[in-house]
Amino acid sequence: MILGIRSRKEGHYITTQPERHTHGPLSEGQWKLESVQSRELLDDEVLVRIIASGICLADVHIGDAPAALGDNVGSPVYYPRVLGHEGSGYVEKTGSSVSQLSVGDPVLLSFTSCSTCYACEDNHPAHCADMFRLNFVADREVYRLEGSDRYDIGGSFFCQSSFASRAVVKARCLVNLRGVVESDEELKYLGPLGCGVQTGSAAMLNIGGVKAGQDVAIIGVGSVGLSAIMASSMRGCRRIIAVDKNESRLQLAKTLGATHTVTTSDESTDLTAEVRKIADGRGVHVSLDTTGVRALARASYDFACNGGKIIPVGMSAPTDTWDIPMLDLMNSGKQILGCVQGDVVPQQYALDMIAWKKKGLFPFEKIMKFYNVSDFGKALEDMRLGEAVKPVLVWP
Amino acid sequence: MILGIRSRKEGHYITTQPERHTHGPLSEGQWKLESVQSRELLDDEVLVRIIASGICLADVHIGDAPAALGDNVGSPVYYPRVLGHEGSGYVEKTGSSVSQLSVGDPVLLSFTSCSTCYACEDNHPAHCADMFRLNFVADREVYRLEGSDRYDIGGSFFCQSSFASRAVVKARCLVNLRGVVESDEELKYLGPLGCGVQTGSAAMLNIGGVKAGQDVAIIGVGSVGLSAIMASSMRGCRRIIAVDKNESRLQLAKTLGATHTVTTSDESTDLTAEVRKIADGRGVHVSLDTTGVRALARASYDFACNGGKIIPVGMSAPTDTWDIPMLDLMNSGKQILGCVQGDVVPQQYALDMIAWKKKGLFPFEKIMKFYNVSDFGKALEDMRLGEAVKPVLVWP
Repeated sequence: MILGIRSRKEGHYITTQPERHTHGPLSEGQWKLESVQSRELLDDEVLVRIIASGICLADVHIGDAPAALGDNVGSPVYYPRVLGHEGSGYVEKTGSSVSQLSVGDPVLLSFTSCSTCYACEDNHPAHCADMFRLNFVADREVYRLEGSDRYDIGGSFFCQSSFASRAVVKARCLVNLRGVVESDEELKYLGPLGCGVQTGSAAMLNIGGVKAGQDVAIIGVGSVGLSAIMASSMRGCRRIIAVDKNESRLQLAKTLGATHTVTTSDESTDLTAEVRKIADGRGVHVSLDTTGVRALARASYDFACNGGKIIPVGMSAPTDTWDIPMLDLMNSGKQILGCVQGDVVPQQYALDMIAWKKKGLFPFEKIMKFYNVSDFGKALEDMRLGEAVKPVLVWP
Repeated sequence: MILGIRSRKEGHYITTQPERHTHGPLSEGQWKLESVQSRELLDDEVLVRIIASGICLADVHIGDAPAALGDNVGSPVYYPRVLGHEGSGYVEKTGSSVSQLSVGDPVLLSFTSCSTCYACEDNHPAHCADMFRLNFVADREVYRLEGSDRYDIGGSFFCQSSFASRAVVKARCLVNLRGVVESDEELKYLGPLGCGVQTGSAAMLNIGGVKAGQDVAIIGVGSVGLSAIMASSMRGCRRIIAVDKNESRLQLAKTLGATHTVTTSDESTDLTAEVRKIADGRGVHVSLDTTGVRALARASYDFACNGGKIIPVGMSAPTDTWDIPMLDLMNSGKQILGCVQGDVVPQQYALDMIAWKKKGLFPFEKIMKFYNVSDFGKALEDMRLGEAVKPVLVWP
């Protein structure tokens, strides 16, 4: 795994890096900060000078999977590649067909989509029929190491690979912040809006449609769960129940709007009963599971009220299935609502989030912790230990 | 099982019925037409002279279950009782607190709800927290056989038990049709609107939100499925795919708006592939399973497009679970939407359906077949054989 690029100017000059490294999974110590050279921009691409990039669990999952998985064409796992998909920065160069962005524009990077399938045409790019290939499999031939004549290092993870000082990005995944942000200091908070923060908040707002007075419960209060809590609080939900095993996270959840907390650190806790009891015995109107753990996802179903909305946004194993009782699902009128990235159009939703923050309604800065990019190992370790909710790597 | 009442006037005079019968499941030949006496009306009840009552599979399921299941308090299965829950008729007497109905009003009977829970207060009576007890367990002490001093025969199934010449009905479950229908002939078509027809059509309209140009697929084209097809056609859906193993039902589906049919009579058919192929390879926007059969319900999930809505309305076994892949559900943005009775408020929705029929948009009369109540055995047999989609018993 290559963590990033340190090219001194627009990706064509490579800093000296005499040793060749093996590349591979995180837990084998094979994420490295190296200098590479990027290929020429395609017509629809933009070179972005990255200011900061959040680390998301998806980077860790994909970047820690066994290399053998990458043997198949179409696999999302392969080495070497550059990961990172919560970047922000400035446009440094544009491809020949890019008209909506200019050199110097501050930008936030989000996911990409095909633009032509039925979901994209219906304004649901996050449910693009080609989402997986475009964002996870991505482009395997974007960078090369010094001395190599082949561009055999993968880039364009979520069409950006923003663990990089210079990222080769599809214009379609950029949110133009010209006139919206004024400084590097503002900009460095914004990368995570393009993935984790929009995922959690828009799941509650757009998919759950939470309303003032409703009760909600969120399992797992990492960056996605805390964003969901902030959004629920902003909407005036009555009871906002945070569920986690990490006590410090639950305390942070309270500062962001959680009215009740339930710890799962004691395995004898009857989570469903606890949440229902808090929610008038009736259960919650909207429940969000950010963990993808089968038993917790099931609890998120069980503690929803009749007609309640259950939103799973956690990464499950591909073989995991819901064990939802069919008859109960029908009789209860419950709704299980799949969604990716909160089903947002980032170019609009990111501006919404920034506006809410400026009004003091959506204080996403409170979940972030910044690290110099050279300390990426520390950032990853703090994330693993739960000491950083949303670590953000800042480029010098 | 007692099929009905034949009391000659308002349920207090009992026709001679010297023999005592055993009562029990349909398949044991123990549905009988007998004369019974009803208890006095409660304040919130209405005595309805029934004109006609549709037979629904729920009557057959509940009325054919082993009597032993009824040993538990709270069981929906017990004998003797009067079933029937798709009735229409005229108000013959009202309880002391009933103000919105007058003697002589034509009425359609639907389900009941508690009126006070959060779902009822939120105008979703079909997802009432007490739905099961009120409609299925119902009241075990409504009728008595001649000579008995105990009212030990159950009534108020779906608060109506309309396999009866006179039904003791909660006012809350009635739809007043004063000024809407003019004759017995019109009225006899309307009972099934209160269950099967609203279930299928409103699932597509209210829960699925089908739109012109969308593709939909319906598995199982009995009365619920055909009502879904009529509603989808009325809304201008592009491809309306009917799935069943019964060829004559599929032909009927075509006359009601199905544009394509897929038979499941050949077990080697790849249902998911067939439906996706018809729907541009993409899959359908809305899929409805009316069967509750696990493999078919799973197909209804698989052949929905990304972001598609999957609506299960079939009766499954209480132990059956969905085997939906969790990761795919999230990534695809599919939505599984439980619903009962199409989540309607019958007092409004029944009027909508009648108005659509008058405009020629919703020809529900085409799925009905009428039987004199004394021929109930023939009606049940025709239903079992698939020769009657919606048998309706007409009282003399």
